[in-house]
Amino acid sequence: MPSFRYYHPIEVRYGDLDPQGHVNNARYLTYMEQARISYIQQLGLWQGDSFLDVGVILADAQVTFKESIQYGQPLRVGVRVSRLGVKSLTMEYQIEDAGDGRALATGATVLVAYDYRRGRSLPLPDDWRRILTEYEMLS
Amino acid sequence: MPSFRYYHPIEVRYGDLDPQGHVNNARYLTYMEQARISYIQQLGLWQGDSFLDVGVILADAQVTFKESIQYGQPLRVGVRVSRLGVKSLTMEYQIEDAGDGRALATGATVLVAYDYRRGRSLPLPDDWRRILTEYEMLS
Amino acid sequence: MPSFRYYHPIEVRYGDLDPQGHVNNARYLTYMEQARISYIQQLGLWQGDSFLDVGVILADAQVTFKESIQYGQPLRVGVRVSRLGVKSLTMEYQIEDAGDGRALATGATVLVAYDYRRGRSLPLPDDWRRILTEYEMLS
Amino acid sequence: MPSFRYYHPIEVRYGDLDPQGHVNNARYLTYMEQARISYIQQLGLWQGDSFLDVGVILADAQVTFKESIQYGQPLRVGVRVSRLGVKSLTMEYQIEDAGDGRALATGATVLVAYDYRRGRSLPLPDDWRRILTEYEMLS
Repeated sequence: MPSFRYYHPIEVRYGDLDPQGHVNNARYLTYMEQARISYIQQLGLWQGDSFLDVGVILADAQVTFKESIQYGQPLRVGVRVSRLGVKSLTMEYQIEDAGDGRALATGATVLVAYDYRRGRSLPLPDDWRRILTEYEMLS
Repeated sequence: MPSFRYYHPIEVRYGDLDPQGHVNNARYLTYMEQARISYIQQLGLWQGDSFLDVGVILADAQVTFKESIQYGQPLRVGVRVSRLGVKSLTMEYQIEDAGDGRALATGATVLVAYDYRRGRSLPLPDDWRRILTEYEMLS
Repeated sequence: MPSFRYYHPIEVRYGDLDPQGHVNNARYLTYMEQARISYIQQLGLWQGDSFLDVGVILADAQVTFKESIQYGQPLRVGVRVSRLGVKSLTMEYQIEDAGDGRALATGATVLVAYDYRRGRSLPLPDDWRRILTEYEMLS
Repeated sequence: MPSFRYYHPIEVRYGDLDPQGHVNNARYLTYMEQARISYIQQLGLWQGDSFLDVGVILADAQVTFKESIQYGQPLRVGVRVSRLGVKSLTMEYQIEDAGDGRALATGATVLVAYDYRRGRSLPLPDDWRRILTEYEMLS
């Protein structure tokens, strides 16, 4: 897997753990979501005003669990856009131990450009396409 | 997609919603997990004592989001085992509107037989294999 | 404590549990919230359209934990309005084992009438006052 | 309110928000819990091994909501022990904007010394009493 230009740190919360003593599986999507929104904001694709203006909706999510995550383990989530389609894009994630960089989980989501106020999908906005192509060196 | 023999009802909680007013994506894994544990318990594969005795660990999870889920929408989650391997099995899910049965999301998880106390994977127990083969009419 | 006219059932989710194997303390507020919204909707105080029209905001919450809550334990949450002020009201809660009715936790919240769109507090609406006084036989 | 010697930073997650666009009320207990465990660990009262060895159980929790918390708002949670009893102690919290230090919420919890393995309350351990008395300058 190629490397990531963007990482977001995550603090494991006690409230993320389940009775098996490790981070519950559903939280992996929460960690990926947090990294995704941070990435979108960092690249200037969303200005942080109304969440109804974010402009993308999840169509698919996938997680591969490699190693369980413990309380107190420092994490960072690598996130990148790996594919730009006409109406959708694919984001890839890697949840890593921030200490030694080893991958604890990988994942991917497909996002569809979406007008929340009108409730319908859209072509991916031109500025998203331009900024992401440049940032991720996509062709 | 073939039908399900087992369904688990879910009440959408206000606490499941996010600022876009619908159920947050990570909760879909929570809904699937709730249905999965109910199924495992119902089939007598786990007696409900220690969660360290459940005997399976998630290796992979996938969700396809078809339609957003609203507060007050009655849900049921279909769950079944679709594949039994030597050390793993695949479970499939469908989150449905309990009123009209339409699919709001589908998903799948791969589970690996696991000894939590020793921290290692195992062959799938014989009783799991026997009970699941019969219940799901797997060959 | 006087009895409740309104109860809302809750299913404990695996995702509500923490490493100590019982329901995490923060979920008690989630259970109380779920019962509160159900009560508000049931009494016709909110029509279930935009959550920006709910018209109350939390000012204070309190929980007394009497007994830990286990996975699989059937629950119901009693909820009632115990006090109507000029701009606020107090709701009381009891989380009970739905089997034998014993109290597992009690709680209270103070809610302030609030206009979310304008961002300011309001006198409690007349219809809330009238409906709640009658339903709870408040004087 | 006197000041705090110990603060724990919190990142607001998108997953903490509810349809009203701010942090959901139940998360305030999660933030306080995260600060509490960090404090307990920092003072050497718990070595981070099994969560069954933490030795305290929640008896009561209270939150006063002063101002809503937004996505992107940097937070820190002040935590301190304000009272040591024979079998219990009181912890106080303040959730603050880490930028300007203004209080967004205050709270308190009562914790009872508890033996999780035997399921019964205990006198507060001597080392807890000694360490906390010194750290918080309690008399």
